[in-house]
Amino acid sequence: MSTNTLRTPPWRVLLAEFLGTAALLCAVIGSGIMAERLAGGNAAIALLANTLATVFALYVLIETLGPVSGAHFNPLVTLALWSKGTLAHEKRAQSAIFFIASQLLGAVAGAWLAHAMFDLQLLQFSTKVRTGPGQWIAEAVATAGLVLVILRAPAGKASALVACYIGAAYWFTASTSFANPAAVLGRMLSDSFAGIAPANAPAFVVAQTVGAGVGVLLDRWLGPRHERC
Amino acid sequence: MSTNTLRTPPWRVLLAEFLGTAALLCAVIGSGIMAERLAGGNAAIALLANTLATVFALYVLIETLGPVSGAHFNPLVTLALWSKGTLAHEKRAQSAIFFIASQLLGAVAGAWLAHAMFDLQLLQFSTKVRTGPGQWIAEAVATAGLVLVILRAPAGKASALVACYIGAAYWFTASTSFANPAAVLGRMLSDSFAGIAPANAPAFVVAQTVGAGVGVLLDRWLGPRHERC
Amino acid sequence: MSTNTLRTPPWRVLLAEFLGTAALLCAVIGSGIMAERLAGGNAAIALLANTLATVFALYVLIETLGPVSGAHFNPLVTLALWSKGTLAHEKRAQSAIFFIASQLLGAVAGAWLAHAMFDLQLLQFSTKVRTGPGQWIAEAVATAGLVLVILRAPAGKASALVACYIGAAYWFTASTSFANPAAVLGRMLSDSFAGIAPANAPAFVVAQTVGAGVGVLLDRWLGPRHERC
Amino acid sequence: MSTNTLRTPPWRVLLAEFLGTAALLCAVIGSGIMAERLAGGNAAIALLANTLATVFALYVLIETLGPVSGAHFNPLVTLALWSKGTLAHEKRAQSAIFFIASQLLGAVAGAWLAHAMFDLQLLQFSTKVRTGPGQWIAEAVATAGLVLVILRAPAGKASALVACYIGAAYWFTASTSFANPAAVLGRMLSDSFAGIAPANAPAFVVAQTVGAGVGVLLDRWLGPRHERC
Repeated sequence: MSTNTLRTPPWRVLLAEFLGTAALLCAVIGSGIMAERLAGGNAAIALLANTLATVFALYVLIETLGPVSGAHFNPLVTLALWSKGTLAHEKRAQSAIFFIASQLLGAVAGAWLAHAMFDLQLLQFSTKVRTGPGQWIAEAVATAGLVLVILRAPAGKASALVACYIGAAYWFTASTSFANPAAVLGRMLSDSFAGIAPANAPAFVVAQTVGAGVGVLLDRWLGPRHERC
Repeated sequence: MSTNTLRTPPWRVLLAEFLGTAALLCAVIGSGIMAERLAGGNAAIALLANTLATVFALYVLIETLGPVSGAHFNPLVTLALWSKGTLAHEKRAQSAIFFIASQLLGAVAGAWLAHAMFDLQLLQFSTKVRTGPGQWIAEAVATAGLVLVILRAPAGKASALVACYIGAAYWFTASTSFANPAAVLGRMLSDSFAGIAPANAPAFVVAQTVGAGVGVLLDRWLGPRHERC
Repeated sequence: MSTNTLRTPPWRVLLAEFLGTAALLCAVIGSGIMAERLAGGNAAIALLANTLATVFALYVLIETLGPVSGAHFNPLVTLALWSKGTLAHEKRAQSAIFFIASQLLGAVAGAWLAHAMFDLQLLQFSTKVRTGPGQWIAEAVATAGLVLVILRAPAGKASALVACYIGAAYWFTASTSFANPAAVLGRMLSDSFAGIAPANAPAFVVAQTVGAGVGVLLDRWLGPRHERC
Repeated sequence: MSTNTLRTPPWRVLLAEFLGTAALLCAVIGSGIMAERLAGGNAAIALLANTLATVFALYVLIETLGPVSGAHFNPLVTLALWSKGTLAHEKRAQSAIFFIASQLLGAVAGAWLAHAMFDLQLLQFSTKVRTGPGQWIAEAVATAGLVLVILRAPAGKASALVACYIGAAYWFTASTSFANPAAVLGRMLSDSFAGIAPANAPAFVVAQTVGAGVGVLLDRWLGPRHERC
């Protein structure tokens, strides 16, 4: 996304990934809790609110933290960009590992921050069952689309496009589009609207990884990006 | 829309039209299924969710695939641009036919992908009756507006304008604005919120074609586009 | 807004004002009918849908027709721009009269088109009572804000700002923000969600006119616009 | 945000802060009243409408009044910018005090204008209890995020980013994100959907002030902003 990260010290890059993933998970989980509390049992209204909050949060986080770290907030995005050779710090083999570690820590911190604000126990495990072939196809589709959007976004538009893409995918995929192993981790740790039971998490991550691969492949088939003038 | 398609090999252009139309129909039908399942019988909430998902999907698809194929995803848009001489590959008479074939195949694939994600039978036929003069006038109005927006969109704004236009037309036209024969085909094949009974499809396509003609005509009456500096 | 209208023949300018006002009223009234039919009695859901459709429609109409006519669609906007000397054709005293006539005709045509799509009788009169000091203050506030936004919008942003302003004002003014005598005329002629009883119309127009004057005054007090680089 | 304020006479700057804060509070409180009246007891639908109106209003107000005063509308934003040395008029020690006074007067005027439009008694005191550690953490988080977004917004994007940030924070913070002592004052004076009991106000302002400090600190840790080309 940005190569300005070359000029930023590594710890600031990792701080941005940690903060951004924490804020993203806090927004997803927190708005899910608020929406479920207020929606009076109508799940469509709750998901509408959850969608709006997530779309707004993603746009803001990518715009404000993108210049620092590239605003991945997602291990599979880091790997997809790494595979394309556009990841800053790619000379050092371990940089992707540090990115991913920061994202996973951030996801946990974000879940706990949401729980603290809503007066809930910090450490929780979700009991929400999300499983079956439809859900796994959905996660593969969701992640393929996300990777494709990021790899092909015109310059300066990744923030709006990623936000809008996730907003659509919350509704058109049967799984409400996690599309992010760090999000799976954070949402595993919240027994609320946005949660996923730990037992169902590994299959989601496998499906997402397959989807990310499909996204990288489709991007190659579509050929080099031409910028519109 | 874009002339970069001149530099792109034809099969990539057709792949983009296939993928984009598939993703559009998957978004329209998938979000319709999700919305109906969650909305507890309130059709306005379901249509709100369906609207948001469609608006977000259209914006993302036109931005990411527009540089490859022009992002028509709609046979009547292809024909309207062809009639104005702005369609890339217009030297080859058969190019419009290949565009339209890719769109129709994509529409079918998109409906089936949505069904796969939601654990539904792939092959279905809609039983939703959409007929009568009001519906036909609505489809003509919807398509005239869509063609007019595309032909007059300021440079670089077609993605936002088409997305917003369809978002408005979902509500102000009595038919929820199909405005696209490929969408009619895909939605014929889904017995869900977004569906249309096959028997009602031909009249919709006729009305859309009349509307597209009106759009081309209005564009001429309004004269050449002036770009604002 | 734009000075390109100087290069456009007058009849095209008036056609754009007619078409744009017709489309705006068709969007406002049509989405109101659709929303009320689907919302199952929940007026907040109906107004949310009505809001989204109006915001999207305004953005699209101002972007696509602005380069032709300036996209006023509102007699008080025409007069406010005329008073500031930025109205194209201002040399001819009668140009504002032709603008306003086109807008009023368009408003009637838009209401009738909405009725035709929804299989309703074309000629109707609203029975919805909208009266009282709160409503009149609301219309003055709504119109003052609209005029202020238009007179102070940074270059190229009037479309998004007017659309967003009206979207907010649908909710924060007690009258749902007509802010437009042409809208009053069109909505008088529709016995539906968006209607206003003819007997209540004159007071709305008076309040709007006062509000427009306040907007012009506030714009002067705020001083010349500085463009941010 | 802007340095154009250097060229604007001080009284115009203060008029813009007064008008903008009044309009913001009028939008927040007015849309809360309208939403609660129409929502039939479903608080999620009411908060969705309140969110949309606030997001739209913030975007419009920052775009139109930003070139005059910088569009703070919030004492803690004024202080955060002052601490960074980017506040125009920073040579005069009392300028921040005048900014804050204009904002507080505007907040009161905005609440009263909303009450006038909805035929309510002008002077009211809220009875809505908003207290407890979760609420205070939420206000600190909300204000830290707001300050961070403002300090790090890429040039020309502060309007969209602040609007979207508040739209997300209405849902992901347990307090619906006041994040502004002037908003606390205005909402204290309205016994409606958006209100806060005066007894709960001081703790909110303390939490917001702590949060603003955290935001300034995080901004420093993230280092200088690099603009993406």
